[in-house]
Amino acid sequence: MAKNFTSRATDFSKWYNELVIKADLAQNSDVRGCMIIKPYGYSIWECLQQELDRKFKETGHLNAYFPLLVPKSYLSKEAKHIEGFAKECAVVTHYRLKTNESGDGVVVDSDAKLEEELIIRPTSETIIWNTFKGWIESYRDLPLLINQWANVMRWEMRTRMFLRTSEFLWQEGHTAHATEIEAVNETRTMLNVYADFLENYMAIPVIKGVKTENERFPGALDTYCVEALMQDGKALQAGTSHFLGQKFSESFDVKFSDKDGKQKYVWGTSWGVSTRLIGGLIMTHSDDEGLVLPPKLAPIQVVIIPIYKGEEQLKVISDRLAPVIKSLRSKGIRVKFDDRDTQRPGWKFAQYEFQGVPIRLALGSRDLEAGNIEVARRDEKSKEVIAFDGIVDYVDKLLEEIQDNLFKKALNHRSDHTTDVDSYDEFKKIIAKKGGFVSAHWDGTIETELRIKDETSATIRCIPLDSNELPGICIFSGNPSKQKVLFAKAY
Amino acid sequence: MAKNFTSRATDFSKWYNELVIKADLAQNSDVRGCMIIKPYGYSIWECLQQELDRKFKETGHLNAYFPLLVPKSYLSKEAKHIEGFAKECAVVTHYRLKTNESGDGVVVDSDAKLEEELIIRPTSETIIWNTFKGWIESYRDLPLLINQWANVMRWEMRTRMFLRTSEFLWQEGHTAHATEIEAVNETRTMLNVYADFLENYMAIPVIKGVKTENERFPGALDTYCVEALMQDGKALQAGTSHFLGQKFSESFDVKFSDKDGKQKYVWGTSWGVSTRLIGGLIMTHSDDEGLVLPPKLAPIQVVIIPIYKGEEQLKVISDRLAPVIKSLRSKGIRVKFDDRDTQRPGWKFAQYEFQGVPIRLALGSRDLEAGNIEVARRDEKSKEVIAFDGIVDYVDKLLEEIQDNLFKKALNHRSDHTTDVDSYDEFKKIIAKKGGFVSAHWDGTIETELRIKDETSATIRCIPLDSNELPGICIFSGNPSKQKVLFAKAY
Repeated sequence: MAKNFTSRATDFSKWYNELVIKADLAQNSDVRGCMIIKPYGYSIWECLQQELDRKFKETGHLNAYFPLLVPKSYLSKEAKHIEGFAKECAVVTHYRLKTNESGDGVVVDSDAKLEEELIIRPTSETIIWNTFKGWIESYRDLPLLINQWANVMRWEMRTRMFLRTSEFLWQEGHTAHATEIEAVNETRTMLNVYADFLENYMAIPVIKGVKTENERFPGALDTYCVEALMQDGKALQAGTSHFLGQKFSESFDVKFSDKDGKQKYVWGTSWGVSTRLIGGLIMTHSDDEGLVLPPKLAPIQVVIIPIYKGEEQLKVISDRLAPVIKSLRSKGIRVKFDDRDTQRPGWKFAQYEFQGVPIRLALGSRDLEAGNIEVARRDEKSKEVIAFDGIVDYVDKLLEEIQDNLFKKALNHRSDHTTDVDSYDEFKKIIAKKGGFVSAHWDGTIETELRIKDETSATIRCIPLDSNELPGICIFSGNPSKQKVLFAKAY
Repeated sequence: MAKNFTSRATDFSKWYNELVIKADLAQNSDVRGCMIIKPYGYSIWECLQQELDRKFKETGHLNAYFPLLVPKSYLSKEAKHIEGFAKECAVVTHYRLKTNESGDGVVVDSDAKLEEELIIRPTSETIIWNTFKGWIESYRDLPLLINQWANVMRWEMRTRMFLRTSEFLWQEGHTAHATEIEAVNETRTMLNVYADFLENYMAIPVIKGVKTENERFPGALDTYCVEALMQDGKALQAGTSHFLGQKFSESFDVKFSDKDGKQKYVWGTSWGVSTRLIGGLIMTHSDDEGLVLPPKLAPIQVVIIPIYKGEEQLKVISDRLAPVIKSLRSKGIRVKFDDRDTQRPGWKFAQYEFQGVPIRLALGSRDLEAGNIEVARRDEKSKEVIAFDGIVDYVDKLLEEIQDNLFKKALNHRSDHTTDVDSYDEFKKIIAKKGGFVSAHWDGTIETELRIKDETSATIRCIPLDSNELPGICIFSGNPSKQKVLFAKAY
């Protein structure tokens, strides 16, 4: 299966596209920039979704659902917001088709023109804040902690499956608070939820930081983000959490009567992650043999393949494996027993390897006689033969080990590809050749930021939250800098 | 809370609309016919979804995701299909907005007109069959059992929250099979999944049947359905399962090479239920005091309200309740402990009653001294005082009892409102006054069906599957009839 498969070193971008297709994760559709998420890809999304949803509920959020279509006039209400999104929206102008004159097709019915055009949501701040107005009267109604799982659409010019598609699936949290400090805390809480999820479930190490003004979400006062480093040395923004201040509450007139009896504007946040995470998952862990999945997010954690000739052998092997499968499942481990006779074991081995199943067990008649079983781990592409009797505990521990190993590998890769620089020459050299994160002093001006971007294609990924605030001299302008910031080329 | 609440007898339709709003289930949005599903309403949808999804996976189906937008030309490929949907679609014609001349709003950018218009999916047969073409080569790829959870849009002229909205949430199953019999079996299996879910989870008794040709899904050879009877005597189509024959495989050229080496068109099915189910849930069980929820689908199954004055009393009561809450939760029971001091107990009682929480427990200092606790059940609006020590088992059993009771009540209502008639005069009288299902002989012609509909507003809900096939004489035409069919006015 890994035949005709481009290696990462040859062409990382081609490797990625081929992997998405060959691992059966997704495919492009006839609709420009929209992908079809295939069952295997979607089952990874379901694993992701389930865990994130649990975390959101644990932190007090409730799910709701708001309309897909946004009246055009809503978008004009928050000036900065519309600037950022206006150029890339799908616009609904009519509500009816009719049979064409020749009777063999359909045309848009020009009599069915909408009075006001409707936009397919690129994000739902406007429609949700317009709704919050009716939900909030007093401090008793706050905080209001809402999340939505939905599809959104942004008319992207250059698309890549999972990483940037016109339609994508995501969750968008929208919250309203009585005080500024509460809203800031919420923004940071959700950033931590994302960081925890990325590191402990997806095994992707992230840097938590704040975006520069230039990279902020349109309409936010502050955009917090988690940034990850891919194997090709480019950064990926994996999730964002926005402190909206009172901008949307002012634009949509959302006030509450506080304990002191005064009418005040509420404070807002919004935060989201999307199917883009699957792109990040692929580009962090996968290799030249295909997909590699961390056990916690693998739809199949263990695949068991019987090696047999004829029904009788299969029965003996299956009987022996039945209690093992049962025990593994009772521990909550997702097991697939693939005893299909339409495919040979070698074909199955190749398929599950390419699809990134963390552990493969194989059992044949000879193993059975010897009391052994073969265990192969995907992350290290290694295999060993162990005693059949201890297999359940062995697998249980191995899954943890693989999860840890993938995180450590990714962390090492990031350390190896994070460079501290003190001159612009060095900066340019690193960005052009080695890639990765480059930590450097910046004078805090948009002008410098844009000049650097223009000259090197590197952007400021974030101002890290956890760094020591050491002042210095901007590598570009020589002006004073408050702290080093993180640059990289990015997806 | 039930003040200013219309009774069912006064105006059933008004009662329904008020209930949806006052129970915090949903509200209308500014976008015509699109509703906002509020957190409480959405949590019911999540309970529904979770159980259905489990059943789909148990029967071998995999989830996937297909694009929201369908190229206009796809809709022309299956002639019957387009006839049924063409008139009510949201059409995307442009992909960009721009700032208007005065700079304070946005207008559609006329330079950004799509070459081919895109339709927001009213259902996904066309896009999915177009995709299946690439997924199916040989009999080894079959059956292909796919489900999608998604939003769809049909530009409805008259809308009502949950029952008929322009945008709604649903699941749509789409399957492909090697043989006709397999596809028919799949259609029936999914009908049974729906019937089982409706009866055993939603406590809604249903009639399983087949639609007449006139009421069939556009493009199907047979549409199976589950029909429920609402409290006002009108029927609700709760779910449908379509046998598509080879119509879509022919239109989209989806062939497979069979075991005999021959190329054949695959056989298809599709089936779906939607947020409409929540409308059916409301109209089956709820009463003049508000929502009534069957325990299996209640987001909160048991609410516990402490009756206290001051922190100290609350602490004593809470300490006593803590192990009860823990035990209930360990049994998988969804419990809410509402100890807010911003609302009085009476207000809480009224709120949870209106929101249909099946069991309410209340504990005050006097109960505590007497070793008692108050248990109120929503379905019968009754309450009793029982010994505190047995409360966990009591609640556990009571939830089952309430579930059964609601089903029986609904079944009795349906029996009382199902009438067998043998003459058209009787038929008209029953339809006009008593309502409900009317079982009558029909000659099998569309002409008779439409004439009856025209004169009485009653439609043939289905040709029941489980009835004894006794022939007779059509009540309208006097011509021979193969079996009685079920008529009703319907939503």
